[in-house]
Amino acid sequence: MALIVQKYGGTSVANPERIKSLAARVARYKALGHQIVVVVSAMSGETNRLISLAKEIMPDPDPRELDVMVSTGEQVTIGMTALALMELGIKAKSYTGSQVKILTDDSHTKARILSIDEHHIKQDLDDGYVVVVAGFQGVDANGNITTLGRGGSDTTGVALAAALKADECQIYTDVDGVYTTDPRVVPEARRLDKITFEEMLELASQGSKVLQIRSVEFAGKYKVKLRVLSSFEEEGDGTLITFEEENTMEQPVISGIAFNRDEAKITVLGVPDKPGIAYQILGPIAEANVDVDMIIQNTGADGTTDFTFTVHKNEMNKALSILRDKVQGHIGAREINGDDKIAKVSIVGVGMRSHVGIASQMFRTLAEEGINIQMISTSEIKIAVVVDEKYLELAVRVLHKAFELEAA
Amino acid sequence: MALIVQKYGGTSVANPERIKSLAARVARYKALGHQIVVVVSAMSGETNRLISLAKEIMPDPDPRELDVMVSTGEQVTIGMTALALMELGIKAKSYTGSQVKILTDDSHTKARILSIDEHHIKQDLDDGYVVVVAGFQGVDANGNITTLGRGGSDTTGVALAAALKADECQIYTDVDGVYTTDPRVVPEARRLDKITFEEMLELASQGSKVLQIRSVEFAGKYKVKLRVLSSFEEEGDGTLITFEEENTMEQPVISGIAFNRDEAKITVLGVPDKPGIAYQILGPIAEANVDVDMIIQNTGADGTTDFTFTVHKNEMNKALSILRDKVQGHIGAREINGDDKIAKVSIVGVGMRSHVGIASQMFRTLAEEGINIQMISTSEIKIAVVVDEKYLELAVRVLHKAFELEAA
Repeated sequence: MALIVQKYGGTSVANPERIKSLAARVARYKALGHQIVVVVSAMSGETNRLISLAKEIMPDPDPRELDVMVSTGEQVTIGMTALALMELGIKAKSYTGSQVKILTDDSHTKARILSIDEHHIKQDLDDGYVVVVAGFQGVDANGNITTLGRGGSDTTGVALAAALKADECQIYTDVDGVYTTDPRVVPEARRLDKITFEEMLELASQGSKVLQIRSVEFAGKYKVKLRVLSSFEEEGDGTLITFEEENTMEQPVISGIAFNRDEAKITVLGVPDKPGIAYQILGPIAEANVDVDMIIQNTGADGTTDFTFTVHKNEMNKALSILRDKVQGHIGAREINGDDKIAKVSIVGVGMRSHVGIASQMFRTLAEEGINIQMISTSEIKIAVVVDEKYLELAVRVLHKAFELEAA
Repeated sequence: MALIVQKYGGTSVANPERIKSLAARVARYKALGHQIVVVVSAMSGETNRLISLAKEIMPDPDPRELDVMVSTGEQVTIGMTALALMELGIKAKSYTGSQVKILTDDSHTKARILSIDEHHIKQDLDDGYVVVVAGFQGVDANGNITTLGRGGSDTTGVALAAALKADECQIYTDVDGVYTTDPRVVPEARRLDKITFEEMLELASQGSKVLQIRSVEFAGKYKVKLRVLSSFEEEGDGTLITFEEENTMEQPVISGIAFNRDEAKITVLGVPDKPGIAYQILGPIAEANVDVDMIIQNTGADGTTDFTFTVHKNEMNKALSILRDKVQGHIGAREINGDDKIAKVSIVGVGMRSHVGIASQMFRTLAEEGINIQMISTSEIKIAVVVDEKYLELAVRVLHKAFELEAA
């Protein structure tokens, strides 16, 4: 008998029929003697509907009241899920984030979980109930309803698994696991049976949408065994995210290829090469709450330097204005350019640690296809490059083949 | 400066536009220096939508989970209402029933309020906030979400007014006050500036839909000054429900005429006239949770008696089956009949106390129109008669005229 937390996202609870099929799956696990906690999101589309309602009233809605409204999405789903389980003859009981209580800080719309009171849930599990918990929401110390931000239901699942010391946290999604890369780009992409936590974290941060990076971080911190599964298929073990790098000899060097079309590149040309330049450029950007991803600085021969960084495409113009208005004259930069026709491709694998030449193999593969590399960034288990957006699919395909990811 | 509780029903919050107009009204009161607590229902149609969703999953939904789902209706409205107030530059803060906390018993879907913690609301009012509270919902001692049943938002409003010792509880509805009778039946019906609590209670119990009888009872118990107003009109003082029978000399004898098409009549014929018969007939009906309204027993000349009572139309067949299966043979009744083509018409007025001949005037008026009276029931300030359904409108019109209710 195991204690399992199962998290179901918006498409898994899209309508009463899907919720009934979710309940049937939970019933099968329950019949095996497991204790089950189900975490559900709002029905797909519901969160957006509620945000639209709020914006009809107030274009930039007050975050406390927005959370009051948006949190009703999951509240409806927990009721429906509990009913669907009861209809199958299973004892079930729903909890909102407040009822659990999932204590968060008071950062409305992007709250962070501080603690979870597992007392009631444990009691219910011991009494034979399936416990259904609203994802994505919590309550602050003053009793105000908070939400964790988009994708927060994954975090709720992982946090509950940590608090309950669950044997496994299963994340049910539209796909049946983590793939070597997006099968829509490379049809030969292969589902991974296992992937290490570090690799998953890099894949998530480099653009893989299967798991929210925040929930992966949380799982890493609390050593929660995560498994990604399809809510649309009856069979399959999905992908297990492990903490052990077991038997690296037999592991492939590269586990997966992630990519991201959401970034834009900003280049500050002809900056005098002296200390403090990076701060003078990025300080005002950070103050404007613009997130920066990759950063590169190259010193030229003429005593000036070129400074390049990437931001989200939606924020490129904002960043450019800040630089041109507040920074360019001040630091004496020659020119400031933006380019949103770029893409980032990353190869990820713990095997890199014990293999040399991975980077050069990557660069050679891209060079053979005539794909120019604009930026490079590396970590111990990841190499990311920025290329022209139009080469994205080609780059992913040739890298997938070069690192033999299609082979089982 | 007064403390006013304003309750707005489903049509007053039907969409973002209506909520904005509600906020504008609250803003005008606030500008006069009043402290305002706003109680809102779910947007019209929302409660039914949520119940349908629940029934799609479980035809007879578990009441605890149904409450979890249905209570989201008001939760969305409080957020929208608070946002609409903020958009007008007014400090506002929303509370669910749990957040207040409105403590109820644990009778899900028809809970009764036990107590209200007015502490937070008072603090917010003193800090200059308009407080927006979800009607219709509360929380039981174990933290489970409860609902008060249909129309419960009126009760929330009155209960809050009582707990806060508000100067007035204003109930905003589709109509601009309490009328001498339904203007759809009698176009000459007149809005009453004032009506006593007792009269209102009788009108509500006799079929007037303006106020929920439960909220009127609550107001009576806690001496809350109630006012019924239109949410669709800017002007007008509506109808004040008072506790004083001031200056009865100038009061009309009859204040209003209520009617009800929802009842059916059941007659048990030829019952031996001996003690205990009423209990033997009505006991099994009560056990089956069928509510009985009027009861009449007439003794005949032959040592038998006829026993007649009314129930809700929807429950006539259930009541008939019970009587035929469990009662008829047992008590030796000759025949049991049901008639759902009846209507009840009631005249109500505290003036009756000091005037004789009201009943005979009522009966004569109906007789002159050839309307047969099937049952009669009276209280100190009410006379109710049951007539053939087809005479309902005619009866109301001639009584309205006979008691000169159209005159100002």
